[in-house]
Amino acid sequence: MTVAPHRAPLVFADLDAALTALRQRGLRVSAARRAVLERLFTAEGPLSAEEIAHGGPETAERVDLASVYRNLEALEELGLVGHVHLGHGPGRYALASEGEQEYLVCERCDAVRSAAPAELEGVRRDIEGRFGYRARFGHFPIVGLCPRCVAAADANAPS
Amino acid sequence: MTVAPHRAPLVFADLDAALTALRQRGLRVSAARRAVLERLFTAEGPLSAEEIAHGGPETAERVDLASVYRNLEALEELGLVGHVHLGHGPGRYALASEGEQEYLVCERCDAVRSAAPAELEGVRRDIEGRFGYRARFGHFPIVGLCPRCVAAADANAPS
Repeated sequence: MTVAPHRAPLVFADLDAALTALRQRGLRVSAARRAVLERLFTAEGPLSAEEIAHGGPETAERVDLASVYRNLEALEELGLVGHVHLGHGPGRYALASEGEQEYLVCERCDAVRSAAPAELEGVRRDIEGRFGYRARFGHFPIVGLCPRCVAAADANAPS
Repeated sequence: MTVAPHRAPLVFADLDAALTALRQRGLRVSAARRAVLERLFTAEGPLSAEEIAHGGPETAERVDLASVYRNLEALEELGLVGHVHLGHGPGRYALASEGEQEYLVCERCDAVRSAAPAELEGVRRDIEGRFGYRARFGHFPIVGLCPRCVAAADANAPS
């Protein structure tokens, strides 16, 4: 299985700081690379490459999908970006953060809840104690029903 | 997100019982369908469609990939087959079983450990108590490091 590389995350306060850092590393900041980073800095959660290519404000530079993928790959290689699998679809990308984010995803309504790793320490300890596996949910999340879909399922269950 | 349908599982002791049941439902048992079921009955774990198409004994009927996918879809629709996502690659298919199997997967060496849902009840309760999400690991497994890769990682960690 290929896994998301565990690079040291490169975290920047804003787009300008990220662009400056790229230039300091001698990397060219193309219009496409700038547009990809811009979308990630304004995103509220992990985005698919499609969403990055087609989303963004009307005035934004259009970026073709292949170019989005190439840039995401380069930025992931550098440690600025990471990806997570939130279901059957393609991976979703987000800026690297200081603490790895972990995720819970609803398989019915696609709700996503992020969690700090500390919140999942008890779960991780329990799994490692019982199975010897050391789980992490930042790349492949916990999948199940969200609270709203649990309530709906329980209401419909035969009593 | 499309999810594996929660059909009532149709469980059969052996290939003949499964084929008889298909015929009783008025379904044709083509050579391809028979070959797909045969591979699943002799498999030791979930198989990808590719493995089903190309695996099997030398003497087995060759089945093209599109036909494998069509048959898996039909068998899943009936409840005889289910699929699980064991990483970045394509889904993997197994015969339905009485109790849903759940899985833990190693992101480094691809080791797969199956677990009875009862073994994961404590973990599930903990997650639901803390986040309200009701997790299941039969379709999207718990991903992390297996015991052997945990030991290797700990041995290499700076002390």
